[in-house]
Amino acid sequence: MPATPFLRVDGARLWRNVERTAARAAAAGVALRPHVKTHKSPDIARMQLAAGAVGITVATIGEAEVFADQGCDDIVIAYPLWVDDAAAVRLRDVARRARLAIGVDSVEGAGRAGLLLGDTDVEALVEVDSGHHRSGVAAGDAGTVAAAAQRAGLSVRGVFTFPGHSYAPGGPSRAAADEARALREAADSLQAAGIEPLVVSGGSTPSLAHTDTDVVTELRPGVYVFGDAQQWELGAMEPEDIALTCRSTVISHAGGRLVLDAGSKSLGADRAEYSSGFGRLLDHPDARLVLLSEHHAVADLGGARLLPLGSQVDVVPNHVCNAVNLSDTLHVEESGNLWAWTVAARGRNS
Amino acid sequence: MPATPFLRVDGARLWRNVERTAARAAAAGVALRPHVKTHKSPDIARMQLAAGAVGITVATIGEAEVFADQGCDDIVIAYPLWVDDAAAVRLRDVARRARLAIGVDSVEGAGRAGLLLGDTDVEALVEVDSGHHRSGVAAGDAGTVAAAAQRAGLSVRGVFTFPGHSYAPGGPSRAAADEARALREAADSLQAAGIEPLVVSGGSTPSLAHTDTDVVTELRPGVYVFGDAQQWELGAMEPEDIALTCRSTVISHAGGRLVLDAGSKSLGADRAEYSSGFGRLLDHPDARLVLLSEHHAVADLGGARLLPLGSQVDVVPNHVCNAVNLSDTLHVEESGNLWAWTVAARGRNS
Repeated sequence: MPATPFLRVDGARLWRNVERTAARAAAAGVALRPHVKTHKSPDIARMQLAAGAVGITVATIGEAEVFADQGCDDIVIAYPLWVDDAAAVRLRDVARRARLAIGVDSVEGAGRAGLLLGDTDVEALVEVDSGHHRSGVAAGDAGTVAAAAQRAGLSVRGVFTFPGHSYAPGGPSRAAADEARALREAADSLQAAGIEPLVVSGGSTPSLAHTDTDVVTELRPGVYVFGDAQQWELGAMEPEDIALTCRSTVISHAGGRLVLDAGSKSLGADRAEYSSGFGRLLDHPDARLVLLSEHHAVADLGGARLLPLGSQVDVVPNHVCNAVNLSDTLHVEESGNLWAWTVAARGRNS
Repeated sequence: MPATPFLRVDGARLWRNVERTAARAAAAGVALRPHVKTHKSPDIARMQLAAGAVGITVATIGEAEVFADQGCDDIVIAYPLWVDDAAAVRLRDVARRARLAIGVDSVEGAGRAGLLLGDTDVEALVEVDSGHHRSGVAAGDAGTVAAAAQRAGLSVRGVFTFPGHSYAPGGPSRAAADEARALREAADSLQAAGIEPLVVSGGSTPSLAHTDTDVVTELRPGVYVFGDAQQWELGAMEPEDIALTCRSTVISHAGGRLVLDAGSKSLGADRAEYSSGFGRLLDHPDARLVLLSEHHAVADLGGARLLPLGSQVDVVPNHVCNAVNLSDTLHVEESGNLWAWTVAARGRNS
């Protein structure tokens, strides 16, 4: 076994998660285009494609390059890129190897993307804000942005949103309802501009069970492959479905608490308002991670007996995407076998 | 220039920070042993040593290996390692190339370290909890742990603490007072056990100006080389001393706000209770980062005019150690020249 802390993947749980979500999408008659920012690992993308995914979603040009290099030939960059000359060169290169679409969320951004890419097959998807209030245009303005993209020479594939306000107590169903409303309005807005929205794309892991598949034609969840403490605490995934943990060693009993060698440099420092702490212990659901440093996690076991120094525990990161992006390797265990997968797109932020 | 987001170091500010803290330690007659977990970069460790540092501090065996490979020959692992057989092999290897000390904070941990390393030159430093309540033994018990280490065959160099509760409003002076009290008591406890504490080590960047150099013989700050939004907001460093930023591009004006392409995968997700947001904008001190995703930071400019799409801004991460650990490269700029340093110990968590 590697030295702790290391990221351990339960291979059987991972495969079950991949298959279950693929089956759900198939049953609902919608396409699945998983977001690979969660795992950044070509080995897992291949599992998802084998299970029926139509292609992949990425967040950056760098991720697109890595997965195109690994043979993924249908890629959406679900991000409103600001395309400069250097970005255009890289996007053209990806587009030679893969069907490619990029996000746009403004008339100016769409015009610029078209100016630099209008002579290629790169398509545009208009990003819509469905209530997360991050990027994305108001639903009613989607047609205006789509028309600008088309005028600039880009084919418009449709619309997409990320209902990220699903990440809150009570958020999943509310965000899914907002998502359906915004995407329907955006699709209407495109049609009013004379553009047929072939793809209406949404989905997030917490809201997946609530997605209105009468509106949405494509789902882009990411976290569902592994799960994490956020999904657990939102009630979106059960602890027995969590497929990735950070294996850690008890290094101290200072102050009568459990001190682990996992910290923010292996787990990430995410802590949402609704989180009970800085992560969870998979086999000790009553424990709370009350303090996190770069190389320490302090667990309050709520009166339970301390585990011995040198023993190992599985920490569930709050936000698995950020935990994975800290590691070059995933150590996969299945049926007693241990092997390693490369996090090939780790750190590819641009 | 690299594609955004990327970490940019102001070389002149970095050098000024390195020299200023070295001069402060020299004036106080204490040794400086900077914590290199902040930069993980041999190029910067060499600057610190050239400016007078007596050696370096690291948090993990992996960091010790990287810096020993690069010629650093005096290393303290300021962490209460749980030494197993594999760790002992690695520590022996480092100890062949460098003077080496490790932390211990329990009788059991000290005994085990001695069992596996007692025949080497590896020394022990007893970690003391001075009020941060993470790892470390109570000050009055330091002599007991030191005696256990010595019985097990380790030379005991002294005591150390991390006054991490300096990271709070009003924390710096209070934590420094706690640090002095705990280290004095711990040193007395060693002497009562017949062990002379040759080194009494403390220091953190926020508390540095308050450290009691009548008690402390060695300082181990890390963040002072770069600074970050935490230091800025604690009043421990001025914005004009911040030497590292994440250069980012404005990619959207969604919702009338500035949306940047830097997110938690380049800045880290740290947000202390006292932080005003998820980081700061160096040249826009009134702006607040109100939302952070993996590849988006949303800035509220407080009514100021939005910067144009495609323009670039310098984001100051909340916690620079975690931001640096997300990147393989630091892009250094000085007098119009741009070059790259490797974050050689990135991801070396074990």
